[in-house]
Amino acid sequence: MRLITFIHDNKEQPGVLSCCGKIVYPAAAFGLPYPTMNQLIEAITPEERRALEQAETSGVPGIPFEEVSLEAPIPIPRQDVICLGINYMAHAEESARFKSEAFGGERPYAVYFSKRVNRAVAPGGYIESHPGLVGQLDYEAELAVVIGKACRNIKPEEAREYVFGYTVLNDVSAREIQTRHNQWYFGKSLDGFTPMGPCILTADEVPYPPKLQVQSYVNGELRQDGNSSLLIFGLDHIISELSAGMTLLPGTIISTGTPAGAGMGFTPPRFLTSGDVVECRVEQVGSIINTVR
Amino acid sequence: MRLITFIHDNKEQPGVLSCCGKIVYPAAAFGLPYPTMNQLIEAITPEERRALEQAETSGVPGIPFEEVSLEAPIPIPRQDVICLGINYMAHAEESARFKSEAFGGERPYAVYFSKRVNRAVAPGGYIESHPGLVGQLDYEAELAVVIGKACRNIKPEEAREYVFGYTVLNDVSAREIQTRHNQWYFGKSLDGFTPMGPCILTADEVPYPPKLQVQSYVNGELRQDGNSSLLIFGLDHIISELSAGMTLLPGTIISTGTPAGAGMGFTPPRFLTSGDVVECRVEQVGSIINTVR
Repeated sequence: MRLITFIHDNKEQPGVLSCCGKIVYPAAAFGLPYPTMNQLIEAITPEERRALEQAETSGVPGIPFEEVSLEAPIPIPRQDVICLGINYMAHAEESARFKSEAFGGERPYAVYFSKRVNRAVAPGGYIESHPGLVGQLDYEAELAVVIGKACRNIKPEEAREYVFGYTVLNDVSAREIQTRHNQWYFGKSLDGFTPMGPCILTADEVPYPPKLQVQSYVNGELRQDGNSSLLIFGLDHIISELSAGMTLLPGTIISTGTPAGAGMGFTPPRFLTSGDVVECRVEQVGSIINTVR
Repeated sequence: MRLITFIHDNKEQPGVLSCCGKIVYPAAAFGLPYPTMNQLIEAITPEERRALEQAETSGVPGIPFEEVSLEAPIPIPRQDVICLGINYMAHAEESARFKSEAFGGERPYAVYFSKRVNRAVAPGGYIESHPGLVGQLDYEAELAVVIGKACRNIKPEEAREYVFGYTVLNDVSAREIQTRHNQWYFGKSLDGFTPMGPCILTADEVPYPPKLQVQSYVNGELRQDGNSSLLIFGLDHIISELSAGMTLLPGTIISTGTPAGAGMGFTPPRFLTSGDVVECRVEQVGSIINTVR
């Protein structure tokens, strides 16, 4: 099923989107007592889950999709988003070409960094261009994983049990800030740099590990076109490695890295400017479209 | 005043510590409706603040310090802790000596990274050694700043108005994990890697910018002995630079970097092992003592 966070009658709440995408069912309509998606992820019972899965045949009246305002599925992450850097080979190459001292070299280990998100940008919301501060504004379409249960010391073969679902994340990046401060954190964490959505597709909807096309379009032009089957470090590795020392709490978002075709990968680079429309799309999960302002 | 989070009668709550350090006054005893320090920081009114400042002469009965269990002042940070890397010159030198490809080179810009903290370690709590995973366990005594009001686009000369107070943070680090993954995030974010406390000393208690001795001791031996007046990038710079693009929310913790004398600075390095007792101390703010297990 596709879980969403939406605003209706001035109330932000989690719910489920119908298969056709035209009807929204508030989780509260089925008696679920969770005001936020994070609380739902952490505490949903098998019975509650079944009720949501059967929403369309329950007789409970839904809300037409046009009458709600769609938010990011987890508008306020509990903690910073964990991101993978350089996790597709072709993107590793284009990054090293752009700035070898920041992105080049051998990488036998996964690169993890974090992205502060005060509030994730909703589908249709704005990417902030930060004029005067940011000159090299870039997009990165990514498959993001949402953790469902606390993970500590998880073996690779157990990892799939901890995946609650998938969403699309645009890891917007200010390249000059990312690289000049040595650590990437600040250049990844500016306000308006984390569009996310349109939904969380629950893990049961996709064979594991997910082999999904990950794409981005800028003003309608295809820029990135990879597949999550090509991740250098896959979900089993990531969840197992991180959880070996760091408990991953329910609601943790791990963005798995971006395929080739980011703006810095072109010669000359093709960075974003005000007015550009960026679409990030993951097969089956959906698409988020955001305008740079 | 010194604000603390403590447990009494199985209830975790914020409060104020008397000058002598022997009496604890729960914030709730003065009618403050904040169950957590984060909520207190975000919403405390001038009147409520005055009431806490006058706790000792209020006639309200306090609780003997021995009867409470002291927690980190912000046990669960709202977001990852923002850390400064390489922000004292002598530590820059020792770090480059230890591993030049990770820490060497010119640094005209501040280095920001983040540290995930599921739960900060209380004074007296344990630093986890993660046997089998971590071989180069290191300590870093730091002065940490707690932000009091949302900051966006703050000029350097305005920064002081946004500082709520100061605390002591031990930026425990797994050096081989920190460096082999290229980005420092993971090696800084393991469970039990963020001892914090003993209190938040409110900003009004210290001339700004703070010029405070920052020290660490391992098994009673002085290892680090610097002064926050020697920060390469000071608070005005940090708060102004970060807030230019990233709104800093109330309760944000910024750890300002560590002086020379970390374990990796010795030849050969002197890393921590199980049973070691680490004390981190910042003048006026106090001291936190934690044992490695």
